Amino acid sequence: MARKEIGIGIAGIGTVGAAVARLLMSNRERLAESAGASLAVRAVSGRDQSLPRSFDTSLVRWFNDPVALANAPGVDMVVELIGGAEGVAHDTVRAALNAKKPVVTANKALIAAHGLELAALAEQSNVSLAFEAAVAGGVPIIKTLREGLVGNHPRRVVGILNGTCNYILTRMESDGLSFGECLAAAQALGYAEADPSFDIDGHDSAHKLAILASLAFGTRIAPEAVYVEGIRSITSADIKAAADLGYRIKLLGVARRTDSGIEQRVHPTMVPAKAAIAQVDGVLNAVSIDGDLVRTLLLVGPGAGGEATASAVLADIVDVARGIITPPFGRPAKLMRPYEQAEMRAHEGGYYVRLAVNDRPGAFAAIATRMAEARISLESIVQRGRAGREGAPVHEPQPVILITYETTEAAIRQALEAIERDGHIVGPPQMIRIEKL
Amino acid sequence: MARKEIGIGIAGIGTVGAAVARLLMSNRERLAESAGASLAVRAVSGRDQSLPRSFDTSLVRWFNDPVALANAPGVDMVVELIGGAEGVAHDTVRAALNAKKPVVTANKALIAAHGLELAALAEQSNVSLAFEAAVAGGVPIIKTLREGLVGNHPRRVVGILNGTCNYILTRMESDGLSFGECLAAAQALGYAEADPSFDIDGHDSAHKLAILASLAFGTRIAPEAVYVEGIRSITSADIKAAADLGYRIKLLGVARRTDSGIEQRVHPTMVPAKAAIAQVDGVLNAVSIDGDLVRTLLLVGPGAGGEATASAVLADIVDVARGIITPPFGRPAKLMRPYEQAEMRAHEGGYYVRLAVNDRPGAFAAIATRMAEARISLESIVQRGRAGREGAPVHEPQPVILITYETTEAAIRQALEAIERDGHIVGPPQMIRIEKL
Repeated sequence: MARKEIGIGIAGIGTVGAAVARLLMSNRERLAESAGASLAVRAVSGRDQSLPRSFDTSLVRWFNDPVALANAPGVDMVVELIGGAEGVAHDTVRAALNAKKPVVTANKALIAAHGLELAALAEQSNVSLAFEAAVAGGVPIIKTLREGLVGNHPRRVVGILNGTCNYILTRMESDGLSFGECLAAAQALGYAEADPSFDIDGHDSAHKLAILASLAFGTRIAPEAVYVEGIRSITSADIKAAADLGYRIKLLGVARRTDSGIEQRVHPTMVPAKAAIAQVDGVLNAVSIDGDLVRTLLLVGPGAGGEATASAVLADIVDVARGIITPPFGRPAKLMRPYEQAEMRAHEGGYYVRLAVNDRPGAFAAIATRMAEARISLESIVQRGRAGREGAPVHEPQPVILITYETTEAAIRQALEAIERDGHIVGPPQMIRIEKL
Repeated sequence: MARKEIGIGIAGIGTVGAAVARLLMSNRERLAESAGASLAVRAVSGRDQSLPRSFDTSLVRWFNDPVALANAPGVDMVVELIGGAEGVAHDTVRAALNAKKPVVTANKALIAAHGLELAALAEQSNVSLAFEAAVAGGVPIIKTLREGLVGNHPRRVVGILNGTCNYILTRMESDGLSFGECLAAAQALGYAEADPSFDIDGHDSAHKLAILASLAFGTRIAPEAVYVEGIRSITSADIKAAADLGYRIKLLGVARRTDSGIEQRVHPTMVPAKAAIAQVDGVLNAVSIDGDLVRTLLLVGPGAGGEATASAVLADIVDVARGIITPPFGRPAKLMRPYEQAEMRAHEGGYYVRLAVNDRPGAFAAIATRMAEARISLESIVQRGRAGREGAPVHEPQPVILITYETTEAAIRQALEAIERDGHIVGPPQMIRIEKL
């Protein structure tokens, strides 16, 4: 039986692009059985044709300009693996969609920044725009939200979306190392960039969370509305205190539907040690979805790496080749609802607070009074290794750890600002949000 | 914009069917946005029209005969929720596919027994046959294997596929209860049938495993080739010993690609307590897939219940309404490879063995000798509460627990048969396979 052949152009031939090209070539027959069409890599683009690659580049046409690749005759589907929200990646995807060619991309920054505009363009051209690889690497979370849970009204999406941060937090706990030591280890292993700020300050997670929130809630993507805190401030003392209290610290992205709008936040989070997502260690990613029908669904898998990302790209390529045209965000772009932001100050939850308290008479009473003034109830108070009693002469500042019952972000901030003003503590208070799971 | 309307007929209007009808009606606008077509429940069938239902049955046409429903004009898509491998469910699905109407079904017995025949019929009629709800309820494992991991060569699929068994094993461990007590509790809660044998003897898991194996390996479904052991033989002593040794006992379905063919087995399994799947408690289901690209992907969610199952059925309905026609097993039925069975005797792994040993001189030496004759090395030997020493007078039989290093099923069976023949033990030996995870 002669099969239709679909010509594929891969724009950006780094680790993932080369893996995709190699796998399309080596698994050609089997992928054709699934796709119902033969998938032929016909063109690739990159910055330097002379570099060695893991596949035979002489079999394909080389382009220095990915936009030219997108427009080239014989290229029926464009796989964009260049990266970056603006510039050539954006131009390439737009060129392909304008030419009525479907696009598969792994570019989270592009989708977070321009996803709706590109989805509208794809729908107008009646072609697919697929981006499974943009979030959580090899974990099929986009397909799960867009298709598998289509009958659900999700209430909350919780994710470990950055393997670098999860690796660092896991090593800090397992090996008792400092943040800096673990970051250096992550860099040595290639898990973190030379400039790691995009990962460890939470921005990478924020992009991915905004995409997931849009799929889950049917609202327009709003990456700028994500509240973001990274993991630089987490100390061994926090990790240790969390363990003692039955928690683990994870950098979570949380998107939640509330009465006042959508809450999107990325921050270090205390999660109950027994929760399934708390067990997700190292560079793994995980996403948990609370839906009205499925209650909770959890997916765990590799969030990065050439082959895991290629797995997601291949799945998209086969879907597109099958002729499946699903609106990129599960419903037509023009029907996506406006994003209504829930105020971060209205966020409700429990809090972990760590203070270095001057060992002076009345210091603790003053702290407790400030909490009471903000109507915050304390679930537990831990103070260890205290040398003297209240009333004894001034000693070293003592670490005090408070766990609050559910309160609001506004209340805890008010209390901590007052405590800082009172001058009984040394350095800024550490505050970590607790998530119920 | 006027949307196309698709008429849906639901054959079998029990808990799941009524939930599907109600949700299609109450979420009509939102589902239409995703499906690109309006989904109208036009007909239902059931055994007793007079029973009260959770949706307004006066809005739909009632059929006593589901085959007549499948053939009725105005029914464009048939949702089969009758159940059972043979008889009216089979007739209904065949009638629909013969009439070139797509079918969505939750019927694992039907798919396990006739999946390939029905897939071929669907492909011949160029319509869909979708069965997400047949395995692991609300967990989108069929879509994940068929589409999300299409670029992978899975090596192994491991699943907790029966919520009843997982509930019983979880309660036995958490509350120190016997198998019988936990089964009674499961029955009282509606988690287990009055005749629970289909669940607790592993046959339900075997059906589901055979479907997953076929999707994962591209081989014909072979439910009859699944080696099946249920959980009746598991005692509190086993659960306790497992915990002491750092394991938990789960009823797993395991399908594995080996050099000599496909291994499919359902049996109580010792899994390392730290493995993610070991944390899956109660009525939850979980499936873990080892692929060449994604390494390990884990999905955890509700395996049963009206709403969770309805979630999977709705996802299939929307996929079908979108016009997506994917071969039901991910590749055309005629390209599915023959199932080559790996001999269970060739299975390799570690084993847990519990023996009640007569407290006689030389008994333990004889047992150790039989293990050595079968070339089995022992990783650990646990004997507790022994009253006397070797050579002391005969006492009560003593429990002895052995953990073997990796060996073969043939070897362990040979050793245990010899040990039984020697007459040093009371009752049959208990043997539980250890799975590396």
